Amino acid sequence: MKQLARFIFLMLFFITAVSMTKQKKTRIVFFGDSITQAGVNPGGYITRMQEAIQKNGTETQYELIGAGIGGNKVYDLYLRMEDDVLAKNPDVVAIWVGVNDVWHKASYGTGTDPDKFEKFYMAIIKKLQAKNIKVVLVTPAAIGERNDFSNQQDGDLNLYSNIIRKVAQTNNCKLVDLRKEFIDYNLKNNPENKESGILTTDRVHLNEKGNTFVAQKMMDVLISK
Amino acid sequence: MKQLARFIFLMLFFITAVSMTKQKKTRIVFFGDSITQAGVNPGGYITRMQEAIQKNGTETQYELIGAGIGGNKVYDLYLRMEDDVLAKNPDVVAIWVGVNDVWHKASYGTGTDPDKFEKFYMAIIKKLQAKNIKVVLVTPAAIGERNDFSNQQDGDLNLYSNIIRKVAQTNNCKLVDLRKEFIDYNLKNNPENKESGILTTDRVHLNEKGNTFVAQKMMDVLISK
Amino acid sequence: MKQLARFIFLMLFFITAVSMTKQKKTRIVFFGDSITQAGVNPGGYITRMQEAIQKNGTETQYELIGAGIGGNKVYDLYLRMEDDVLAKNPDVVAIWVGVNDVWHKASYGTGTDPDKFEKFYMAIIKKLQAKNIKVVLVTPAAIGERNDFSNQQDGDLNLYSNIIRKVAQTNNCKLVDLRKEFIDYNLKNNPENKESGILTTDRVHLNEKGNTFVAQKMMDVLISK
Amino acid sequence: MKQLARFIFLMLFFITAVSMTKQKKTRIVFFGDSITQAGVNPGGYITRMQEAIQKNGTETQYELIGAGIGGNKVYDLYLRMEDDVLAKNPDVVAIWVGVNDVWHKASYGTGTDPDKFEKFYMAIIKKLQAKNIKVVLVTPAAIGERNDFSNQQDGDLNLYSNIIRKVAQTNNCKLVDLRKEFIDYNLKNNPENKESGILTTDRVHLNEKGNTFVAQKMMDVLISK
Repeated sequence: MKQLARFIFLMLFFITAVSMTKQKKTRIVFFGDSITQAGVNPGGYITRMQEAIQKNGTETQYELIGAGIGGNKVYDLYLRMEDDVLAKNPDVVAIWVGVNDVWHKASYGTGTDPDKFEKFYMAIIKKLQAKNIKVVLVTPAAIGERNDFSNQQDGDLNLYSNIIRKVAQTNNCKLVDLRKEFIDYNLKNNPENKESGILTTDRVHLNEKGNTFVAQKMMDVLISK
Repeated sequence: MKQLARFIFLMLFFITAVSMTKQKKTRIVFFGDSITQAGVNPGGYITRMQEAIQKNGTETQYELIGAGIGGNKVYDLYLRMEDDVLAKNPDVVAIWVGVNDVWHKASYGTGTDPDKFEKFYMAIIKKLQAKNIKVVLVTPAAIGERNDFSNQQDGDLNLYSNIIRKVAQTNNCKLVDLRKEFIDYNLKNNPENKESGILTTDRVHLNEKGNTFVAQKMMDVLISK
Repeated sequence: MKQLARFIFLMLFFITAVSMTKQKKTRIVFFGDSITQAGVNPGGYITRMQEAIQKNGTETQYELIGAGIGGNKVYDLYLRMEDDVLAKNPDVVAIWVGVNDVWHKASYGTGTDPDKFEKFYMAIIKKLQAKNIKVVLVTPAAIGERNDFSNQQDGDLNLYSNIIRKVAQTNNCKLVDLRKEFIDYNLKNNPENKESGILTTDRVHLNEKGNTFVAQKMMDVLISK
Repeated sequence: MKQLARFIFLMLFFITAVSMTKQKKTRIVFFGDSITQAGVNPGGYITRMQEAIQKNGTETQYELIGAGIGGNKVYDLYLRMEDDVLAKNPDVVAIWVGVNDVWHKASYGTGTDPDKFEKFYMAIIKKLQAKNIKVVLVTPAAIGERNDFSNQQDGDLNLYSNIIRKVAQTNNCKLVDLRKEFIDYNLKNNPENKESGILTTDRVHLNEKGNTFVAQKMMDVLISK
């Protein structure tokens, strides 16, 4: 009888311990466009982060969730944040958006004005911070990898990245400055000044190296060992 | 003493009567872009409506408020509706937007995708109806007055007007179909197929006839005699 | 010896006759964009014209040559007319262009201004007419088949078609007014107001019915029985 | 009588000498857009060059002619080169174009594709060189003066400047690389990273310093002392 009691006690202790551990998991939602949508595929940057946290023994501390939809601009994120982010009760949201806000100017005539980009970005952050969710901002990496600023959208990508950097500072958000990282990487690793094939397959979406690179940069900011 | 009491009683009665009359005033906010911004100017369509209700003796029943800002697209209205509309406790809101959503595609590359136009339009209506505010929808009248559908934005203006007509039906909103009215008017009154000068000064903004015409069409739907 | 002379004489006579017959063939070059590039494929509109003239017994009178390249605008035609048209010594050139001049405004930001469209169009006609080549003009048929003028580019397609109609008149060129023909056809045959699938596969390029329809309209103007 | 003969002889000698001097004048046509159109105004860069050659005593050697028209793109230059350049029998033509080819993408949807830009540029050079006219190429200076490549059109301006640099080399043309000069100048003289006001009034058109600066850079290449 005593042994049974001890066994039950131990079981309860164990279950409690496990559930407490579970409660401690930091839930991170990656909120973005087609690049993030592909991030959960095999080899994708979120998948690689998952593998990395398994390797470094922090998989019990983090839960990574992809919430990317192709073609999304900042106000698409705003419109679907209730269903796709808040409903998941995240602790951290990494917002990675901007490529389509810039790109769709030329390809559809429906890009986002810089001031509206900032307003909707701010509105998203405000809603998340009101629920005590930590927000991490990510700058749009590239539309074209030429390293002499001769990609058509370079001017706007730099401008919108400047906005994100300012917004990060204003709102005390951590920043993964992929725009800067990609430019620095291409200056060193793109001697032929190619449009794509360094970190991207098609000037925008990540190739194998790109996914590894982004996973690493995200880890540096999002995951503490 | 008796007379004073009677006087006070009458005064109170009068004040109450006046304030009750005041409470009965239907407050209409015109929510829109530069066309509506100009609507409150001397000769503007809202000013003309004001004059008309004074003439027909309904000025005690209606209060007209302009809330137009130049360059506004549907999501600009969405972003400023708290401050510029809800804060004014309107009974009725007439939403007249769409010209810039279409026009800015060509002139800035920052027009609004049709599906996003509908989503933000619906979000505005939902917020207003949740506060028991009546919503009246207005289709974008014109960017160019040629009557053979050879104005550059005719296709999109017709498409976005179709969206507004559908949304009006779905949400049981009254509709001032200025797109249809302008096309019909120009078919009869623009024999030389001119780009502007019929109801507009510059293909978009209302001339004197345009302001009178719009005021009348708005009256027909918004003001009951 | 005499018989040999007679034989040689007959041979020469025969060769001369054949070559004279050959010289009589009217050579028609179809000068255009991707729609015309596909026109020489099996089932394409030029292929169908070829089959039709074989059927009606005029194949000895006409030679049909396709000169379409995908994505071409009016100034692309201008830039390649020496190599692709004049080098072929045509008797007739049918110019069918305009869809990309309009479409590329929204999809690349590199459409053609209406006045430049007219100038390059005129320059092409002038060069062809200077060589006594007959020029037949064709209006751009469709970017989207909705029949209530709610396709995004309807305004511009109507405007550029108006320019072509005017240029045809000014230069005494025959006109195949496909814009008008497609609109009329869709009013009768597109009761559900669909975007594509009536005469096109994808709003622009011809399906089977479209190729038959265009072949017939081209025949009516280009081929005399 | 003898004296009269001597006088007439001297007169003739003088007239011949003057006219021979006149024939030696190098005629330079500045072929471009609104920036060049303004260049002949008081204070404009061409006017300043004129003043400079008067100062340095070479005004007898050079004749400067402005041929700029607002809004011109490369193919506008091509279309009007007969009337506006060749008709003036120039010795040298300085081609300064590109701002509108890039800018009109966003503001009208009618910019110039990079490959067409190169084709028309080449066509102009070919026609000029066929008449033994020296051609000097000028890169488009700026649309916005921010020095961190965050002006919207920076990517395209760099790309189109790269094309011009390549074309200059291929065709043995001297180059006034204003794009490079403006970037270098702004890096040193625009510490607040302003959009305009350094060398331009409005991000594109030259202010006083800009006109002086451009005049100097043009002098360095076009005028030999």
